[in-house]
Amino acid sequence: MTEVCDYLQNVLNEEIPLTQALQVKVVSWQDKKLSLTLPLAPNVNHMSSAFGGSLYCGAVLAGWGWMHLYLKELGINDGHIVIQEGQIAYPHPVLGDAIAICYPPAEKEWAKFEKVFKRHKKGRLALNTVIMYEGKEAVTFNGQFVVYCEH
Amino acid sequence: MTEVCDYLQNVLNEEIPLTQALQVKVVSWQDKKLSLTLPLAPNVNHMSSAFGGSLYCGAVLAGWGWMHLYLKELGINDGHIVIQEGQIAYPHPVLGDAIAICYPPAEKEWAKFEKVFKRHKKGRLALNTVIMYEGKEAVTFNGQFVVYCEH
Repeated sequence: MTEVCDYLQNVLNEEIPLTQALQVKVVSWQDKKLSLTLPLAPNVNHMSSAFGGSLYCGAVLAGWGWMHLYLKELGINDGHIVIQEGQIAYPHPVLGDAIAICYPPAEKEWAKFEKVFKRHKKGRLALNTVIMYEGKEAVTFNGQFVVYCEH
Repeated sequence: MTEVCDYLQNVLNEEIPLTQALQVKVVSWQDKKLSLTLPLAPNVNHMSSAFGGSLYCGAVLAGWGWMHLYLKELGINDGHIVIQEGQIAYPHPVLGDAIAICYPPAEKEWAKFEKVFKRHKKGRLALNTVIMYEGKEAVTFNGQFVVYCEH
């Protein structure tokens, strides 16, 4: 488990250098659920809460990381993952360190993606991430990701 | 003009420290239009394009900065501006330095906001930002901002 988290941590820090400023940490990959921590200090704003842009970054990185790890488990290592669209809502302020959690999509959604991806070497999948703070869903995010292989 | 840009630059760097890592620069406030630059180097990803999270940050900061400057022009200096919801789309990749531009809302939208805000010391306004790269609208963003005064 720790090995997978360390692996993804390195991928994020090397491939997306801003993750170092955000101080995002990969903490768990379990039951197809990915969790990252987002500390308040480097992401604070004038209201002593987390900056909305940082929260979006945490949410999109959880989605991107989820897709990366899940494709890797299926033996797909040459897929490029890009975000095409994102919708975010901030129902509660985040006043301390928070956790971004990306959940797996419904099985039929994944099956549809996998079928299209295998045929066309390109596919599109929507993923949901929440950011939890003090037991509340402080942020909800839905991202449409595209995965493609270059040949 | 430069004075207003320097003022907002200081506000952003002090109130939202992540803006320093993003290296966002305020470059113009003209005809109720705010422009910020977002350099590629600190915001690059594994595809040698701008990270989707950084692009969201550029877009939301342009919206936040627009609201801050416009309220200031109206003599409102005690309004807290927070983002409530955001929708972003990435139709084209950003492969170099880019410009985030926030446009003023339609006059009737602003008038509605101003009326509600003056009465209740709280109001909600949607703002549109685009991120331009090589003359194209590479990113489009719509953010719902809430402004309120503490009393």
